[in-house]
Amino acid sequence: MSAVTSIKNYYINIAPDKKYTIAFGENAHLAINKNDIGQATRALIITNTTIESACADALAKFSGHLELTVHMLVMEDGETAKTLDTVSTIIDACIAYDLGRKDVIIAFGGGVIGDMAGFAAAVYLRGISFIQVPTSLLAQVDAAIGGKTGVNHSQGKNLIGSFYQPVKTVVDPTRLKSLNKEQMKEGLAEIIKYGVIMDKPLFWYIEQHMDAIRTFSYTDCPDVWNFLIEKSIQNKALVVSQDEKETQYREILNFGHTIAHAIEACSKYSDYSHGEAVATGMIIESLMAVQLRHLSCENYDRIKLLIQSFNFKLTMPKCSITDFSAAIKRDKKIRKGELRFIFPTDIGQTKSINGVGFESVNTAIAAYFGHPLS
Amino acid sequence: MSAVTSIKNYYINIAPDKKYTIAFGENAHLAINKNDIGQATRALIITNTTIESACADALAKFSGHLELTVHMLVMEDGETAKTLDTVSTIIDACIAYDLGRKDVIIAFGGGVIGDMAGFAAAVYLRGISFIQVPTSLLAQVDAAIGGKTGVNHSQGKNLIGSFYQPVKTVVDPTRLKSLNKEQMKEGLAEIIKYGVIMDKPLFWYIEQHMDAIRTFSYTDCPDVWNFLIEKSIQNKALVVSQDEKETQYREILNFGHTIAHAIEACSKYSDYSHGEAVATGMIIESLMAVQLRHLSCENYDRIKLLIQSFNFKLTMPKCSITDFSAAIKRDKKIRKGELRFIFPTDIGQTKSINGVGFESVNTAIAAYFGHPLS
Repeated sequence: MSAVTSIKNYYINIAPDKKYTIAFGENAHLAINKNDIGQATRALIITNTTIESACADALAKFSGHLELTVHMLVMEDGETAKTLDTVSTIIDACIAYDLGRKDVIIAFGGGVIGDMAGFAAAVYLRGISFIQVPTSLLAQVDAAIGGKTGVNHSQGKNLIGSFYQPVKTVVDPTRLKSLNKEQMKEGLAEIIKYGVIMDKPLFWYIEQHMDAIRTFSYTDCPDVWNFLIEKSIQNKALVVSQDEKETQYREILNFGHTIAHAIEACSKYSDYSHGEAVATGMIIESLMAVQLRHLSCENYDRIKLLIQSFNFKLTMPKCSITDFSAAIKRDKKIRKGELRFIFPTDIGQTKSINGVGFESVNTAIAAYFGHPLS
Repeated sequence: MSAVTSIKNYYINIAPDKKYTIAFGENAHLAINKNDIGQATRALIITNTTIESACADALAKFSGHLELTVHMLVMEDGETAKTLDTVSTIIDACIAYDLGRKDVIIAFGGGVIGDMAGFAAAVYLRGISFIQVPTSLLAQVDAAIGGKTGVNHSQGKNLIGSFYQPVKTVVDPTRLKSLNKEQMKEGLAEIIKYGVIMDKPLFWYIEQHMDAIRTFSYTDCPDVWNFLIEKSIQNKALVVSQDEKETQYREILNFGHTIAHAIEACSKYSDYSHGEAVATGMIIESLMAVQLRHLSCENYDRIKLLIQSFNFKLTMPKCSITDFSAAIKRDKKIRKGELRFIFPTDIGQTKSINGVGFESVNTAIAAYFGHPLS
């Protein structure tokens, strides 16, 4: 029933000699070819307990046409598993299976697997090849595109990592058939984000296909989901190609995320999914944009109504204003203690604003939820 | 009494937009300027227990002309301290001192400090600026030049790391005044290596200044040591500029090191200094080159006699042939189980040879030491 009949390629062009493909389509992993893996003779697939069987299934296909000796390492799932210790476990496996400089690590899973495995690939023998095979919607539209790898520190998310691009990313949307509604919803927040920050037609498309999207079922509406995923890949590839290391332009992708990271930190990464936190973050940051006169009320209403229509859990964690403020100030993007935000100025347009005071955050929270943080 | 009267600059040119300076001279750290540190407002100096006082002394000068808030982290010294755990300690300090993306880590010490601090800088917030201030001869002529950073794994040296270039390296040779003879000798092995692999005039110079060098005192012969250090920096900068990530040409720097790494691994990194292991490694690998008909006996004799004249500890660790062979095969440079060596073909010339059998290693060891590994 899939509408995908062939594999399409999108490209990330970081520099004249640094370019790679994102292959999109059913069984996209079959597009991995000898060119991608060079002289590799061994591959280590990193996957998790949740999707191990799908992985084992795909394993045979990989090794068949590529003449690779393939090993598999099954990791714990979840954001709490993303630490320097688990990276060390991956490196132990690389050594045990005797991976050399020309060999390859394959991240087969969601964002957590991709981040950990990518970081392990970045630092093992000072960097070996790796391939991203994202299996969650969030990873397919965001985490697996663009080369951000890393792990968490007790003091914050992704504080340790590197910019390290895969040799190929393969996105097979039909893998989403096995996801539940919550998992699909998690990825939707980032798709909406692309609409708000850079893609007005995508925003319209989401508004127009609200009912189909609300089923949160790939099987029921493959065409709609394929469209959303392809547009997201194209948007992210465009941003990363222009500014790999987030020196400037790439920061537009942080829309909604300053608030989201603080929500996640203050709830110890357990009560909110990343998607829920980003959904709330986009509403609060859009409202701040209105209050600071960068965005019209009409556009804020469109953004808010669109997000609300998908029934995200839109609440704030139970934490003090002091803790929330401290969490925001620990954000990687903070410069000399001043908050910096990406504000929408229209649907599909943004502006980055320095020197925003924390009181603007609390004013927006108070206005949206009816009471300030205590 | 120092012969250094001004600061000279050498350059590493990795790409048109990726170039940095190695400043050489007394008080070279004063050459660090606003350009190097950009918008940094905070610096974290990583140093060790051995040189802490020198560091504290230099600290005032740093912070004075750069308007930086400077913090200091004192680490244990020695190769065994170079682990993922110690990197984690550095990252804890970065967070505690609130270092942001624009701030800077300064490695003030020998190779171990530079490797650890450089790796921490590479992965903290996906990479912040760092400056190398090497204080040992080994670090000044080798470890601090070229952007190799990393830590050890229980299974081998430098198995975890990244290629990450500093924004500047400052080499003040007068710091060597406080080093003892063993510490000076440690660095000499790498200087001899540059002579053998790429710099015949340097090799001659070492032959001609043998007596001065044998004092292993910077204070007694600053001109000689300054010459050796400057030539080494120039040679290494040349190699790294051509091939940052060791895809090909840079591997010439591994001459002597395949055997050396196995010696170090088989003695659990405790009985031999790196310099001693490299000295033995260069002799054995040169002898292999003779036996495999790449090098003349005359040139081998010159290399051997030069190395022997400096009283390096030239012995093999007490280990079985099986362990030694396994240690060699764990080397990062091994491809598909085949040994690859850089052989000198003349003084100042090399050739890289694939598919060397382990029996060639043991034959050379037997010939040099009078008995094979048991």
